[in-house]
Amino acid sequence: MIEELGAKVKAASKEVAQLSATDKNSFLCQLAESLIQNTERIIQENDRDVAKAKEHGISEIMVDRLRLTAQRIADMAVGLRQVADLPDPIGQVLQGFTNLDGLKILQKRVPLGTVGMIFESRPNVTIDAFSLCFKTGNSVLLRGGSDALFSNIVLVEIIKENLRAQGITDSVVELLSDTSHEEAEKMMQADQFLDVLIPRGSARLINRVKEKSKVPVIETGVGNCTVFVDESADLEMASQIVINAKTQRPSVCNAAESLVVHAKVAAEFLPKLCEDLKKVHPVEFRADEAALKIFQAQENCPAIAATTEDFGTEYLDYIMSVKTVNSLDEAIEHINRYSSRHSESIVTRDYFNVQKFQDEIDAAAVYVNASTRFTDGFVFGLGAEIGISTQKLHARGPMGLEALTSTKYLIEGTGQTR
Amino acid sequence: MIEELGAKVKAASKEVAQLSATDKNSFLCQLAESLIQNTERIIQENDRDVAKAKEHGISEIMVDRLRLTAQRIADMAVGLRQVADLPDPIGQVLQGFTNLDGLKILQKRVPLGTVGMIFESRPNVTIDAFSLCFKTGNSVLLRGGSDALFSNIVLVEIIKENLRAQGITDSVVELLSDTSHEEAEKMMQADQFLDVLIPRGSARLINRVKEKSKVPVIETGVGNCTVFVDESADLEMASQIVINAKTQRPSVCNAAESLVVHAKVAAEFLPKLCEDLKKVHPVEFRADEAALKIFQAQENCPAIAATTEDFGTEYLDYIMSVKTVNSLDEAIEHINRYSSRHSESIVTRDYFNVQKFQDEIDAAAVYVNASTRFTDGFVFGLGAEIGISTQKLHARGPMGLEALTSTKYLIEGTGQTR
Repeated sequence: MIEELGAKVKAASKEVAQLSATDKNSFLCQLAESLIQNTERIIQENDRDVAKAKEHGISEIMVDRLRLTAQRIADMAVGLRQVADLPDPIGQVLQGFTNLDGLKILQKRVPLGTVGMIFESRPNVTIDAFSLCFKTGNSVLLRGGSDALFSNIVLVEIIKENLRAQGITDSVVELLSDTSHEEAEKMMQADQFLDVLIPRGSARLINRVKEKSKVPVIETGVGNCTVFVDESADLEMASQIVINAKTQRPSVCNAAESLVVHAKVAAEFLPKLCEDLKKVHPVEFRADEAALKIFQAQENCPAIAATTEDFGTEYLDYIMSVKTVNSLDEAIEHINRYSSRHSESIVTRDYFNVQKFQDEIDAAAVYVNASTRFTDGFVFGLGAEIGISTQKLHARGPMGLEALTSTKYLIEGTGQTR
Repeated sequence: MIEELGAKVKAASKEVAQLSATDKNSFLCQLAESLIQNTERIIQENDRDVAKAKEHGISEIMVDRLRLTAQRIADMAVGLRQVADLPDPIGQVLQGFTNLDGLKILQKRVPLGTVGMIFESRPNVTIDAFSLCFKTGNSVLLRGGSDALFSNIVLVEIIKENLRAQGITDSVVELLSDTSHEEAEKMMQADQFLDVLIPRGSARLINRVKEKSKVPVIETGVGNCTVFVDESADLEMASQIVINAKTQRPSVCNAAESLVVHAKVAAEFLPKLCEDLKKVHPVEFRADEAALKIFQAQENCPAIAATTEDFGTEYLDYIMSVKTVNSLDEAIEHINRYSSRHSESIVTRDYFNVQKFQDEIDAAAVYVNASTRFTDGFVFGLGAEIGISTQKLHARGPMGLEALTSTKYLIEGTGQTR
């Protein structure tokens, strides 16, 4: 399976690399149109996935990640047109100069080649990943989760129908429909076909890929994000930020999972937060000893004792760990120990503490007085997003088109030797 | 061993990240001075390595890679001063803007953290790697080959003496003196301590690291480089380029290992090349059938039949594989199949062939009418080089200071929520 699909996408990568920007853009707009025309067909297949998920007793939040509606399909089409509208990074000259030997040296942006994506649940990733890879002249091998198999199959069918209609080899995208672990592991070893592997999903998935992969990996998306409420924080602002970061969309990676609060304001802040949350959505707190005492002294503040594991957990649910600290240093140490290096925020009035927090927190995005929910390719001006890198190599934070490119040095001489 | 050294370099990375450019630069100049003062001490230890290597019957070319002379130590000192003179990339703002939500977003260059280097033979890598990591605010864990152990130990001792003298924690550099495979494999798994692993050495070493490593890897340095002599080539120029690429320093990665020649000029070119080589250095050709016939018709042109394996081999010696082709397409296909994606050159007069070769050859550096020997951080204006990346992620081609950095988004708000 991998041998066959891998060879196909590898061969197709040469063709897609040579497509003009015009051809690529008009194809993406055509595909957007086609998705909307196929709305019923897509929803029909997605319904099969949703029904299966419900049978398996999957949580409502996870079913929500899986579900496609006419609105979400229309959003996917909008996304395709937005990608078409972005400038094509391929062929861009990053630098060029004539060196001491008289060699004319250009550094040019080129496609990566073939991209492997291993992802879970959200079927819109199929369209997102394809469009970004296609725009950057890459072919792509997709391996979605078994949960979304029917949705992914129909989406890839529609892409392929459109590719063939435009006379482009339909192997620029292939879907691994065998969703077994064995086949996924073969994909991780397939460095003869794949130039990069991008896993998107749970911490467990990403760890498995990191451990098993021979193909270079870009780690994405595990977001154990923290909001730190400093002693000088505006507590009204802090409460709004924590509530937004935790509850506005708990199933996404930039949602906050952990609250760190300065001991000097904990007794005032935690009851206020609990009160404010009543107007929004209940949240279960997993609290350290000091915080637990404060919660338990309140009426109707559901909290239990946190284990060490809680501080490192991405709940993706209405649950939040709470840690009290006696200093900024303690907060930074705690966050750097347990976070997934995605997004962390400090709420403070103290200028020195802002500097220290931004300097010393080791994460892709470090916020001051704002919700972690903003870590996103669109918010950061990238126009699109293939994932959020939580590693330090190649790309860090939201990854747009450039993250799917490499460079090549082109050197022209007149017979120079050394 | 790894547990202890890994924890040390990890802790030290926080300190070195905060050093000012002035402190880092003055330290590097101080170290340069100290290396020269310690010339005798270094040579004494290096002599022990060289004696051991000769006992083991290692080839003269490899002994040359290992040997340190007063001149080479002076060159290392010059290298340190050059690194001190380079601008410090840390803290550089790559972009900054205020987004639609009023968030002030900055993208800033930061150190990677802790770098692991696994390398073979050349002990100057110890100083190069340390200086580039230190300049970019990283700590570094070095694992050199057993061949160069005495040299590496004394060089790291000297670095540490100087660090302590300047009041900097001497754990910003550590050397893994246990050079067993087991310990190296533990290092490849140590992603709790290391942010990146850079292997420098043989294809075998690099492949092992790729397969075993959980730490993100930057592949470097395997150079199975090719010169293609097209039918329209200036054969005098072609001969000079092939001779330079093959013989000027055969032990380095940008030396050519393979010659591809258009069938239409092979009968004229190969005898000329063989003749011209007599004035420089004998080279053993491993030739395909057509080329072998031409060589064998000559007097004194040592050539044997090539196996398929020859085309994929980095000899690092006065040996060269030779393949004849009937078209540019065949040449490109051959090179893309066997090359290590390092540096490839075409010698031609044909403008269309230049374009096609540069577009379709998949390598870090693609040359026209010049020797592959120019692929080098200094030649490409980087001012320094930690290795030459042959992968497409993070960095491709010669890697200077920027390749040892990552970025971080810093976002300042006034209470924004989503």
